[in-house]
Amino acid sequence: MSEPSLQPPAAPDFAFRTSHAAGLARLGWFTTPHGTIDTPAFMPVATQGTIKGLSVDEVEEAGGRMMLSNAYHLYLRPGDMIVRGLGGLHAFTRWNGPMLTDSGGFQVFSLAKWRKVTETGVEFRSHLDGSLHQYTPEAVMRIERNLGADVIMQLDELIAGGADHHASRAAMERSLRWLARCCTEFDRLTRDGREAATALVPPDRAPPLFSGSGDADAERIAPPQALFPIVQGGVYPDLRRASVAGILDTAEWHGIAVGGLSVGEAKADMYATIEACEPHLPGDKPRYLMGVGFPDDLIEGMRRGIDLFDCVVPTRMGRHGTAFTPDGTMQVRQSSFRLDRRPLVSDCRCPACTHYDRAYLRHLFASEEMLGLRLLALHNVTFLLRVMEDARAALANDSFATWSDGWLARYRAKGK
Amino acid sequence: MSEPSLQPPAAPDFAFRTSHAAGLARLGWFTTPHGTIDTPAFMPVATQGTIKGLSVDEVEEAGGRMMLSNAYHLYLRPGDMIVRGLGGLHAFTRWNGPMLTDSGGFQVFSLAKWRKVTETGVEFRSHLDGSLHQYTPEAVMRIERNLGADVIMQLDELIAGGADHHASRAAMERSLRWLARCCTEFDRLTRDGREAATALVPPDRAPPLFSGSGDADAERIAPPQALFPIVQGGVYPDLRRASVAGILDTAEWHGIAVGGLSVGEAKADMYATIEACEPHLPGDKPRYLMGVGFPDDLIEGMRRGIDLFDCVVPTRMGRHGTAFTPDGTMQVRQSSFRLDRRPLVSDCRCPACTHYDRAYLRHLFASEEMLGLRLLALHNVTFLLRVMEDARAALANDSFATWSDGWLARYRAKGK
Repeated sequence: MSEPSLQPPAAPDFAFRTSHAAGLARLGWFTTPHGTIDTPAFMPVATQGTIKGLSVDEVEEAGGRMMLSNAYHLYLRPGDMIVRGLGGLHAFTRWNGPMLTDSGGFQVFSLAKWRKVTETGVEFRSHLDGSLHQYTPEAVMRIERNLGADVIMQLDELIAGGADHHASRAAMERSLRWLARCCTEFDRLTRDGREAATALVPPDRAPPLFSGSGDADAERIAPPQALFPIVQGGVYPDLRRASVAGILDTAEWHGIAVGGLSVGEAKADMYATIEACEPHLPGDKPRYLMGVGFPDDLIEGMRRGIDLFDCVVPTRMGRHGTAFTPDGTMQVRQSSFRLDRRPLVSDCRCPACTHYDRAYLRHLFASEEMLGLRLLALHNVTFLLRVMEDARAALANDSFATWSDGWLARYRAKGK
Repeated sequence: MSEPSLQPPAAPDFAFRTSHAAGLARLGWFTTPHGTIDTPAFMPVATQGTIKGLSVDEVEEAGGRMMLSNAYHLYLRPGDMIVRGLGGLHAFTRWNGPMLTDSGGFQVFSLAKWRKVTETGVEFRSHLDGSLHQYTPEAVMRIERNLGADVIMQLDELIAGGADHHASRAAMERSLRWLARCCTEFDRLTRDGREAATALVPPDRAPPLFSGSGDADAERIAPPQALFPIVQGGVYPDLRRASVAGILDTAEWHGIAVGGLSVGEAKADMYATIEACEPHLPGDKPRYLMGVGFPDDLIEGMRRGIDLFDCVVPTRMGRHGTAFTPDGTMQVRQSSFRLDRRPLVSDCRCPACTHYDRAYLRHLFASEEMLGLRLLALHNVTFLLRVMEDARAALANDSFATWSDGWLARYRAKGK
């Protein structure tokens, strides 16, 4: 392996340590400028700067410690420069803990009305108003450094699930070239500062924009952030290995992500792909499995050495009336709940389970009442955070293998 | 005035006292089986057993002390007998404070797909599934006594706003006849108990239905409730006077409602109609102005001797992005909020105002995020409850006239 060709800026605000392990699973701490979180951890997703239906207080109460947001969405609305003017993503959303922004590559590929991918980047039309945008590695770095999350993701090239080896290799290799450009631009922004933000004018009598001293030059200094690279390569172990090698050749990193999974491939393929990456990933950095968050996938991921997860599934399923339980998923609209005074999940600590019963939750969904969506989203987020908490406790007391075997067996028993 | 012909049951659980007055406005306490509330009071509306978008904890934290629900909606879904089986409306909704159910006469007249009004009652088709239902005074009493709110409303005949004297008189007189039938059935249910509820079977392993001892006979005993009559008569003072006289001839009451207002008439007509009723209403009972809840109407109502109010407007307007402020209403989607870091209302204690800024609230609405609806509904409910709290404080320290003059002048200044 050659010497890294680019150096990310010194970022003493980031650190990662592990204490206990069980097979590949490990218990650790990830330190960011906005605090330290215990790992393995699940990050609830605030796509547009809010976890759908929930307040930040509720998410924190549920055990959420690190939140994810989406650069594509916030770039289009309200605009990354506006978020920066309002004090950055933490001030904007009132989430004071660690945050991560995804580049939104996935959204560009799945939501944009039209897109053209070249070596330069992605040209696309907004899903909101059809306006034309250039999404290059450099532009994405400028956007994510304006937003100001603790961890920011590179722009990568996404391909359809089931892509062949040739297409997967091409996208993986392009993602590596884009990573190098991200790294260069990240460095440049650290060195030269961000673009001056002079066009933003608050209304009469409103407080000034930008945090801190009000010194426009000082405000251009980018906050300490860690850029994470993304391992690509579809379901092909050789491409995944090549991707990891290329990433480690590019620079030193504070963490590394595995992307391009949970896009329609079989679960076995997803697990096998994580296994193909794992031996090559640095052991002393957090590993983040992007977009994966069904309860069993969290446990299977931890067993394969993953430290960070995110997924919209708890809030999305909650909005559709589906609840996670230790025995699999459960639909709250089912007619047997009409007269069922039991809590949704008997040992769950969330407000839906401690305060209400199944009959009332069913009524809320049958009546299309917003409180139902809220309560079920909160239940599902709490459920996943609790899985992670229990996993960490099992790691700490060296019972992870037994705990995770038992958990998975119970979760999967109903379907058999 | 002749001796009341019917006697409602003894209900020692109800009482009303006043201590301070300013003109017709009075400070008081209304005691119900589920607690005592300070009056004048605004009751947030949980039409389908939930205040749209809000949890009961949030409403209580905002200062809500008495909640209103709707017999028509709960009769159709989930069913009044099911609510009774689940422990009654308080247990079902987890609201432990005083509750009131409206008969849903207004909903029958405005939501039903088809309706036929006769002296017997209203035959209608459900707005949900088109099923046919008989809504008679007796049926409504059975429904409301199954639901179990502290205060229940009579069935009355609703007419369109702007109805002429002849139509208004006919509906008012029919409402009086229906009141007598409500009273008779209310009495009968008190004496003979409610219909046995044997058809409800909870699912396997679920807790038994009905609260208390599990004694099916004991469960038939109706809870202590107060039946409130409703003054009708459109905007015609002579009809309103006749309605009050008829009501007072029918029985003794624990409170009396003024209905048929805020249905499209001019505000001056609404205020004049309250004034036409007021001298004839018993001074020692709470007066409830139905369906009225804009901030200025609350104050104008208090000034005319009203003690209780309800309205869906705070949550409905909140869902549409309109906020109450001391200077009138404000639309949070306005573009000037894009870079406005001020709270929505600077001295408001609600979570939307203490925790977030206008720029973020605007973003939530622009992005159609559920948290925006929640926060604005909570703001508006808090705002109205705060108006009532301030009014009570002004009554207690004998500054109500000055306070309400100042409040109304500021609220109405912007439009001038």
